[in-house]
Amino acid sequence: MIRRTAHRIRTAGFLVLLCGCVAAAAHQVGDLRGTGDLGIVIERASGRVVVVDTTARSALGRIGGLGDLSHASAVYSRDGRYAYVFGRDGGLSKLDLLALRIERRIVQAGNSIGGAISQDGSLVAVSNYEPGGVRIFDAATLDPVADIPAGIDDRRSKVVGLVDAPGRRFVFTLYEAGEIWVADVDGSGRVQLEKFPRVGDQPYDALITPDGRHYIAGLFGEDGLALLDLWHPDEGVRRILPGYGRGEAPLPVYKMPHLEGWAVAGERLFVPAVGRHEVLVLDRRTWAERGRVPMPGQPIFVVARPDGREVWVNFALPNNDRVEVVDTETGAVTRSLRPGRGVLHMEFTPRGEQVWISVRDENRVDVYDTRSHEKLAEVPAEQPSGIFFSARAHRIGL
Amino acid sequence: MIRRTAHRIRTAGFLVLLCGCVAAAAHQVGDLRGTGDLGIVIERASGRVVVVDTTARSALGRIGGLGDLSHASAVYSRDGRYAYVFGRDGGLSKLDLLALRIERRIVQAGNSIGGAISQDGSLVAVSNYEPGGVRIFDAATLDPVADIPAGIDDRRSKVVGLVDAPGRRFVFTLYEAGEIWVADVDGSGRVQLEKFPRVGDQPYDALITPDGRHYIAGLFGEDGLALLDLWHPDEGVRRILPGYGRGEAPLPVYKMPHLEGWAVAGERLFVPAVGRHEVLVLDRRTWAERGRVPMPGQPIFVVARPDGREVWVNFALPNNDRVEVVDTETGAVTRSLRPGRGVLHMEFTPRGEQVWISVRDENRVDVYDTRSHEKLAEVPAEQPSGIFFSARAHRIGL
Repeated sequence: MIRRTAHRIRTAGFLVLLCGCVAAAAHQVGDLRGTGDLGIVIERASGRVVVVDTTARSALGRIGGLGDLSHASAVYSRDGRYAYVFGRDGGLSKLDLLALRIERRIVQAGNSIGGAISQDGSLVAVSNYEPGGVRIFDAATLDPVADIPAGIDDRRSKVVGLVDAPGRRFVFTLYEAGEIWVADVDGSGRVQLEKFPRVGDQPYDALITPDGRHYIAGLFGEDGLALLDLWHPDEGVRRILPGYGRGEAPLPVYKMPHLEGWAVAGERLFVPAVGRHEVLVLDRRTWAERGRVPMPGQPIFVVARPDGREVWVNFALPNNDRVEVVDTETGAVTRSLRPGRGVLHMEFTPRGEQVWISVRDENRVDVYDTRSHEKLAEVPAEQPSGIFFSARAHRIGL
Repeated sequence: MIRRTAHRIRTAGFLVLLCGCVAAAAHQVGDLRGTGDLGIVIERASGRVVVVDTTARSALGRIGGLGDLSHASAVYSRDGRYAYVFGRDGGLSKLDLLALRIERRIVQAGNSIGGAISQDGSLVAVSNYEPGGVRIFDAATLDPVADIPAGIDDRRSKVVGLVDAPGRRFVFTLYEAGEIWVADVDGSGRVQLEKFPRVGDQPYDALITPDGRHYIAGLFGEDGLALLDLWHPDEGVRRILPGYGRGEAPLPVYKMPHLEGWAVAGERLFVPAVGRHEVLVLDRRTWAERGRVPMPGQPIFVVARPDGREVWVNFALPNNDRVEVVDTETGAVTRSLRPGRGVLHMEFTPRGEQVWISVRDENRVDVYDTRSHEKLAEVPAEQPSGIFFSARAHRIGL
């Protein structure tokens, strides 16, 4: 008995010691870490994301089981801990980047194409192709909050170009119906809709400027872009850049450029031309074209370095192995990089000292120093596509 | 023996179970949390900061022992976990906002006035009055990296207006010498200095635009402002706004306005006038004055709501109980608030849905909804002054 008692005491002591160690480890060096330097890289073919750390320039781990991630995108909770990943199959997954696991996951539609998080971080909205519309969920629980079927009369429309705007609003575009809708969601989940009809033929994508003021939809069925000034919705939607689109394209359009890639640099916007080997330069005040920069391929993303001094450009096939760096002041190409086949996406760290580039066919993400334009690191990833850093939590319209 | 073996097995099982529980608890609900919604409020009289959570709109705890925090400011590590607090007594404290404790603290000079963190997050710089100069520290360890005595010949100058600029550069101004210096720090801590002499009489403060391009110093000894375009340092420093300063002031100047409070809203800058009951409106392209907004007192901080639609203004004595909200498009005051005596600072959440306002004499920080202009919450704080949210980690020049 004595021996057993002694054994119990030793066991208890060991337990206390163990508890203390585990708790201390958790508190001091274990799990505590900031989230401002985290991000995710989409592994499109395998339904996973790689969680990355931009300070160490390395992977922290992977989270799988996310369904069809072709064309997937992500937004962040306001604390930067959770990424909401929008899959092509209607899946909405809330990922905990600290615990490296799925916090919650729902399949909320049959076919979807991106999402947004409200300014206050309380609502996540998803834009759906099938059934066409927008569904809104509680960001904490993913419980449904509101359902907005999109279309005219009984004819449903696919929804594209969904973004957040200041004040628990979401703005989106109806592909078949050719309308822009602004949804204002109150604290009880009631939705007030403002509809802008006949904005153009087959709007296929849209963007909002970083101040959340100007919403611009690209048109697949005709040239020009549809502009809505959210400070003056009463003025309606007007047409800008009448020559912009496929009508002017001298080449077959391999891929319509992403509008969300428009780069704002000072008073100018840098925009991928459609079907032309050019980047267009626009005046931010008047939206008029100010110039064109010749490129070695059809641009897909034109992304501004956060200080606005450079834009970095990637390309459609057959030039998707290249990245061109353009000086925004002179319009000159200052550097031509060849990261490898399948350059799909570029993401700058928020203050702009690094850019991360997905090189799909090399199964690699390359990290470049944006001052020297030299490669700093390589992070292995299986057929990487979109890269999304947690600093997006703090931006309007991302 | 059989029983003991069984006991051991049970114990081992319990240990495994316990380990699992402790680890799971720590991992699930314990210490893990994001840092994107954290911030600190300076309690100037007591040498403490309150760590706050902008999602819960409440205090998480306090960290004390930080010395003289009058005129204290802070910057953030790139992961958002650590705040570097610059005290008036030369103290530089690295605070761990997750563990709620001082990670490291040094007293690096006799009298200092703010600091900055390099674009890559690796270096923290402090501007000192006594001895006049800038000292640069490793952001991880606070070990000294470089010392830059400031002055002409043997005459030391106080350093003001220290900011970071893209590419491990720091820009600062010498008060007595009337010079602007740009320090470029390489990976080994070697400093290359570029000096701009005779920028004006007694430059007392400075700011850098959010893109890190234009550095502007205010002058105490004469009117006008000194502008350096960091994209074109070869063009030197030029004078802008020749009427700006005390010379034009119709009233005694109770407090020189903070330059770092300049608000950028679209193509315009909103700037506190010196000694006048006005906010000046400047053209961002030409720096020319475009208008003046009448105010009920001498403005101190003029801060833009992140979407640029409003600027919020606080005032010097005897009007330091007020906050005025100005519509940037019309120039009209749309709301007049009276939070209480001693409104010292205002900080917007990064996407702009809330603004936090220190009300010193009420021992309170007020949280306002920026859409309705209604108060959402009050957070107790002892004589609060500066408020700094962790999203500053992601901005140039803050």
